[in-house]
Amino acid sequence: MKTKRMERVLEAMERRGLQQMIVSSPAGIRYLTDVDIRPGERLFALYLSARGCKLFLNRLFVVPPTGLEEVWVSDTDDPIVPLAAAVDPTQVLGVDKDWPARFLLPLMERLEGLRCVVASDCVDAVRAVKDQEEQEKMAAASALNDRCMEELKNWFHAGMTERECVEHISGLYRSYGASGVSFQPIVAFGAHAADPHYASGDTVVQEGDCILVDTGCVLDGYCSDMTRTYYFHSVTERERQIYALVREANALAEAAIRPGVPLREIDRIAREHIAAAGYGDNFTHRLGHFIGIQCHESGDVSATTDLVAEEGMCFSIEPGVYLPGETGVRIEDLVLVTADGCRILNHLEKGLEIVG
Amino acid sequence: MKTKRMERVLEAMERRGLQQMIVSSPAGIRYLTDVDIRPGERLFALYLSARGCKLFLNRLFVVPPTGLEEVWVSDTDDPIVPLAAAVDPTQVLGVDKDWPARFLLPLMERLEGLRCVVASDCVDAVRAVKDQEEQEKMAAASALNDRCMEELKNWFHAGMTERECVEHISGLYRSYGASGVSFQPIVAFGAHAADPHYASGDTVVQEGDCILVDTGCVLDGYCSDMTRTYYFHSVTERERQIYALVREANALAEAAIRPGVPLREIDRIAREHIAAAGYGDNFTHRLGHFIGIQCHESGDVSATTDLVAEEGMCFSIEPGVYLPGETGVRIEDLVLVTADGCRILNHLEKGLEIVG
Repeated sequence: MKTKRMERVLEAMERRGLQQMIVSSPAGIRYLTDVDIRPGERLFALYLSARGCKLFLNRLFVVPPTGLEEVWVSDTDDPIVPLAAAVDPTQVLGVDKDWPARFLLPLMERLEGLRCVVASDCVDAVRAVKDQEEQEKMAAASALNDRCMEELKNWFHAGMTERECVEHISGLYRSYGASGVSFQPIVAFGAHAADPHYASGDTVVQEGDCILVDTGCVLDGYCSDMTRTYYFHSVTERERQIYALVREANALAEAAIRPGVPLREIDRIAREHIAAAGYGDNFTHRLGHFIGIQCHESGDVSATTDLVAEEGMCFSIEPGVYLPGETGVRIEDLVLVTADGCRILNHLEKGLEIVG
Repeated sequence: MKTKRMERVLEAMERRGLQQMIVSSPAGIRYLTDVDIRPGERLFALYLSARGCKLFLNRLFVVPPTGLEEVWVSDTDDPIVPLAAAVDPTQVLGVDKDWPARFLLPLMERLEGLRCVVASDCVDAVRAVKDQEEQEKMAAASALNDRCMEELKNWFHAGMTERECVEHISGLYRSYGASGVSFQPIVAFGAHAADPHYASGDTVVQEGDCILVDTGCVLDGYCSDMTRTYYFHSVTERERQIYALVREANALAEAAIRPGVPLREIDRIAREHIAAAGYGDNFTHRLGHFIGIQCHESGDVSATTDLVAEEGMCFSIEPGVYLPGETGVRIEDLVLVTADGCRILNHLEKGLEIVG
């Protein structure tokens, strides 16, 4: 049996001239089959081919009936043997971009001459365009994220630590029915905000600190992700300037989104605006990433992407300016591409706010 | 500059006839260089060769001076270009077992004819044997795990849910100075304990449920991991039987550990004991896994391993019996191989206990 989503992937493979591929990312397999496994280091793979599809499972996994052709192995078996038996060695094999060398190299060794190519885009292109049901789930997850960010902002107080903020918003998510966070929330005070991937610690908030909050929850299997930057009790003139700059970059990028626009053009608009003010070297990352059942899905809004905006795509718009040792600003929304523009999924204000 | 641990890995490579390798696991790089990065989907790699070692970094990473030769790329660069320039295409290249296809296949395409082999064991063999400082950290993390498990057991009460137990022990870890859990703790009531990888939910404990707790914390960068199975208010005769069986399997295996014993022999002793009582098909996983700076490190105690016990190795001994739809038992300790036997790092009693 093939699911509708599996059929869409087989069509994408056919357009690429691929007869067979192995999907190995647990999220990809869950998206295609509804089988939800965290395989750890064990083999969990979906072999897709017009000739038939097979799901490779370890006996340790507890799985309800899948309706698919199942191939079971134990920890005492070499899982590459049945996998190699399923693959046609005379045809190119597509593999998942994240498939680890410990499976890929032994398979290539066993099937001498087998040519492998990264073919995740066949799955990713299908996942990138959300259907109506998925769009509503993305909107609901972001609405909850807005609500919790607002409550967190109203809860800010002197003496709080970054970690307490992380725990507070995580608790809010749970209390409103989210199944968890979509990533470890980042709360960064003052100069910590200059590190876009900062890990929150026991730092206590100080007068004049910026408070950068990058956070998201998982609701009904779909992820949210937003960033706001606040100021505790006061703000400097320079901070006002870079805040305004980042806010403008965010707004300019969002205003440019509509079907047919190359995503690198969206990135360029935000990046050039920041560079024109002399802060080009301080915007050190891509403008955005795709999101859905995972917080970071394949596809980005960057200078190097070849993707073009298409109705149903969902991604983040998150320009930032980072001043090492001093401060940082990032303003991030999720957007859904619509027929003639985009729907911004986050509704929390983006004007500069002094809090606490 | 090379660290002492990098030199040990280069020696292991030389014994294997390998001139060069790429270490890509963040934990492996942290172990070798003390550089602690969570690279997400970006390239983070340590190229090791007697001719020189290079660390490949993304400008998005915030890193204190490493003392190593650094190669920096931006999100707008193709990271494979400088990597390919460092590799000698005439020599076999060792790669990390987890290196994803999205880096491995483009590198192989760019350096036509390059032969790649999984060579993580050169790093893993060094990591598997803990030095004195690491051994003391492993012991301290397990002592804290014992303490928190004991407090959790004393806190058990009617009306509690699995998830509340997970949150309670996670809070205990933090309150005693752990930096976090070493994996998402598993608390499984009743028939849920029959799934060795169960995800705890909102189930409320019932009279006569078993309570399986598989949990660990990270202290000072090192992981603990233990399992105990308790019974809420009462226990059936069949549960007493399988509990005694699993406890015996745990004790027999631990008693057999000493340098020179093949780890598959340790697995066999536990497995045969369980099989002799008719429950062989209900022990569905390997006996144990290696552990250290990561909860699951390379190497296991299983029917298929070729590893032989060596002084300083640290792994789990965790036999289990799972009766689908009914109940499950697992009893797990961490052990350190000593000169003439092993040191069991968990000291919590293993006799059957009725709690609540």
